[in-house]
Amino acid sequence: MKFISGAVRRSAIAAVFMTVPVTAFSEQAPTIDHFSLDNGLEVVVIPDRRAPVVTHMLWYKVGSADEDPGKSGIAHFFEHLMFKGTANHGPGEFSARIADVGGRENAFTSYDYTAYFQQVAPSELRTMMEFEADRMTNLVLTEEVIGPERDVIIEERNSRVESDPSSLLSEEVSATLYQNHPYRIPVIGWMHEIKQLNREDAIDFYKRYYAPNNAVLVVAGDVDTAEVREMATDIYGAIPRGPDLEERIRPTEPEQNTKRTVELTDARVAVPSFSKRWVVPSYRTAEPGEAEALDILSEVLGGGIRSRIYQELIVKQGIASSAGAYYQGTSLDDTSFGVWGSPRGDATLEQVETAIDAEIAKIVADGVTEEEVEKAKKRYLRSMIFARDDQSGMARIYGAALTTGSTVEDVANWTDKIREVTPAAVQQAAKKYLDERRSVAGYLLPQESK
Amino acid sequence: MKFISGAVRRSAIAAVFMTVPVTAFSEQAPTIDHFSLDNGLEVVVIPDRRAPVVTHMLWYKVGSADEDPGKSGIAHFFEHLMFKGTANHGPGEFSARIADVGGRENAFTSYDYTAYFQQVAPSELRTMMEFEADRMTNLVLTEEVIGPERDVIIEERNSRVESDPSSLLSEEVSATLYQNHPYRIPVIGWMHEIKQLNREDAIDFYKRYYAPNNAVLVVAGDVDTAEVREMATDIYGAIPRGPDLEERIRPTEPEQNTKRTVELTDARVAVPSFSKRWVVPSYRTAEPGEAEALDILSEVLGGGIRSRIYQELIVKQGIASSAGAYYQGTSLDDTSFGVWGSPRGDATLEQVETAIDAEIAKIVADGVTEEEVEKAKKRYLRSMIFARDDQSGMARIYGAALTTGSTVEDVANWTDKIREVTPAAVQQAAKKYLDERRSVAGYLLPQESK
Repeated sequence: MKFISGAVRRSAIAAVFMTVPVTAFSEQAPTIDHFSLDNGLEVVVIPDRRAPVVTHMLWYKVGSADEDPGKSGIAHFFEHLMFKGTANHGPGEFSARIADVGGRENAFTSYDYTAYFQQVAPSELRTMMEFEADRMTNLVLTEEVIGPERDVIIEERNSRVESDPSSLLSEEVSATLYQNHPYRIPVIGWMHEIKQLNREDAIDFYKRYYAPNNAVLVVAGDVDTAEVREMATDIYGAIPRGPDLEERIRPTEPEQNTKRTVELTDARVAVPSFSKRWVVPSYRTAEPGEAEALDILSEVLGGGIRSRIYQELIVKQGIASSAGAYYQGTSLDDTSFGVWGSPRGDATLEQVETAIDAEIAKIVADGVTEEEVEKAKKRYLRSMIFARDDQSGMARIYGAALTTGSTVEDVANWTDKIREVTPAAVQQAAKKYLDERRSVAGYLLPQESK
Repeated sequence: MKFISGAVRRSAIAAVFMTVPVTAFSEQAPTIDHFSLDNGLEVVVIPDRRAPVVTHMLWYKVGSADEDPGKSGIAHFFEHLMFKGTANHGPGEFSARIADVGGRENAFTSYDYTAYFQQVAPSELRTMMEFEADRMTNLVLTEEVIGPERDVIIEERNSRVESDPSSLLSEEVSATLYQNHPYRIPVIGWMHEIKQLNREDAIDFYKRYYAPNNAVLVVAGDVDTAEVREMATDIYGAIPRGPDLEERIRPTEPEQNTKRTVELTDARVAVPSFSKRWVVPSYRTAEPGEAEALDILSEVLGGGIRSRIYQELIVKQGIASSAGAYYQGTSLDDTSFGVWGSPRGDATLEQVETAIDAEIAKIVADGVTEEEVEKAKKRYLRSMIFARDDQSGMARIYGAALTTGSTVEDVANWTDKIREVTPAAVQQAAKKYLDERRSVAGYLLPQESK
């Protein structure tokens, strides 16, 4: 299914954001049930009685950044293999069942997690659990399964990355931004390494990472908490605990001292675009309050039509057709903060870059106003409330948080923490992290022009 | 002792070159004795009767590119630990003995190998072997040894890298150039990872890599081949074979699609400088003849005062104080080709870059002349003969070749292969590899100027 990349285009970012922010349920938070089974499976149950629907998500604490060197793409490849059938169910049988009962399903792989998702009528929850628990241990991994699926992934990479200059650029911006950390490597994997992935890699990966003590079950919907607990204990609880896993410690970034640029010129580019990224702390790695300040900074600077970048570049100067900022805070390790823009009409990419740089410089020099910060908080919290209102959005927030080092308590306290962000903290975050001398800019250019 | 980095300054490059080219002994090659002991130790004996001196070098097939992720610097750190004493000899005893007999010693770590070197009177060869064989297995690795030596390395990095903007820039150019391969990581290691290296890391590294079946002994000098063979069998042959090592397969580069720049601005920079690098094949990874063509290309383009870059930028235009090109062909994996220059007088860095780019473009478009190639070959072969003339130079050529995937035969055939390089092959190498769209440029700039 899909992989979540670090692409800098707004559409991709939006997709990431759905899974990303560690948020909460404001004042009217439902009573979350949170417990662990004896085999180590962590379970979160979120009652949501508004419609007769249940979301069943199983999250594994493994993503592309956990891959061994030279094995890029195995996490995402493995996600595909999970649909290939087990000792008990033929290939596609699980998906067919979901379709039969009018449900929907998906799966996704990111740097830090891999998740499997079904949305069905509550009466089908037990069946979903049975299928999902079954493929945690009984997957059939023969050459007949591996070979053709690898071709599918190669084709996926061809169509989504190789033929898309903006994706190719985005990959190399990441590879330049991270000098040591595996976020450098694309989630889908480098093509030449995907081509080498084999049955042994798949089996090793399965044995190592697919076990109840490396997973988080999130069930949201029209369910009775006690019933879910019983059902999960009954079905998932029967799976033996896997081997103990080492702590997820990846190589970290050295001190960065340089300003870098990455430029891709391609005849297929119709509209040029610019991006700039920095390595910044994530919710897990930040000092208290810093990640929240970065979230509000991204909102003030470039989060939607009320932001400084939008107002200045699009509304006032009219030099950009799109522009904004983002912060990917829900990451196990230090993550990135980015800005981007595309010129409009006769404006040049350089004008867009200069104008965005100027907005950053203004915040660094003069800070932001109390009013701006309050409005940004409101917008941000409102978008979180909106995400909460979607059942699968709720499930995703918990799953992403719990697989990137945050806790259920962190999620519950998140809105309060956002409310505490001060204008001074926002300015300080910009000053500390958005340093031109440690930035990486990406330029996507049409053939023969700049 | 010293580490060999990928620094782009001429001085550093010269040092690398001493160990780098896979060369041969032209017509009058001495009779090399080459054999392996039962425990897997490979031995090369090079008679050189001109002076009563012998060079004893032990090369291990392990360098910084073999380090585990997050453990950067352990290969170089370990090189230091080898001087710290064994169960049989106190710290510094080996070095004291060498000094006592008027000898000299050194050691160095590179991406692909670590080597230990002594030059003494032939009568001392047995003693050198005994000390060197002893520290292959009997090293004392206590906390008392590890802690203080780590501080020495930290200080070494502080004085050689952290306080030198050109070294800092060079590191980040490498980290940008290699998106996946460990040549991305500095030989000395990232500071934050050096600080974490511990006794367990050192013991693991020692057990894994320091064994006769992972080493090459090179003895050059005033020795009798049969005697050396007997002595080596007697002393090194007594060491048991170590565990079998996996093939040295490191992650390789993905297809690169972008043009990148890396810029460091620092008040300590007196003279700005420019460099540009590309990933190119090494002698081991190249198609037949390609590495030789890259060697001649580097010579024609920027190897000394007869080269195009020197003649154009320094002699004719007078815009550069120094400029040149290099190719690091002796590498286990794909390596780099580079050009560099510093402006002179009122000339700008941009002028230097433009002029160097123009020289490359001319070769790509119009090729090189037969006469240029012949002269470049002669210069190149002469420099190799010069290197050969130095006893330790000879030993280094063999050691570097044998630890980076070349054979004694490759070394013997190398001059013939260089002679076969054609102008068309040189042009083709430039066209294929020196593509602006896949280059990484480094800019070292004084504060507040460009």
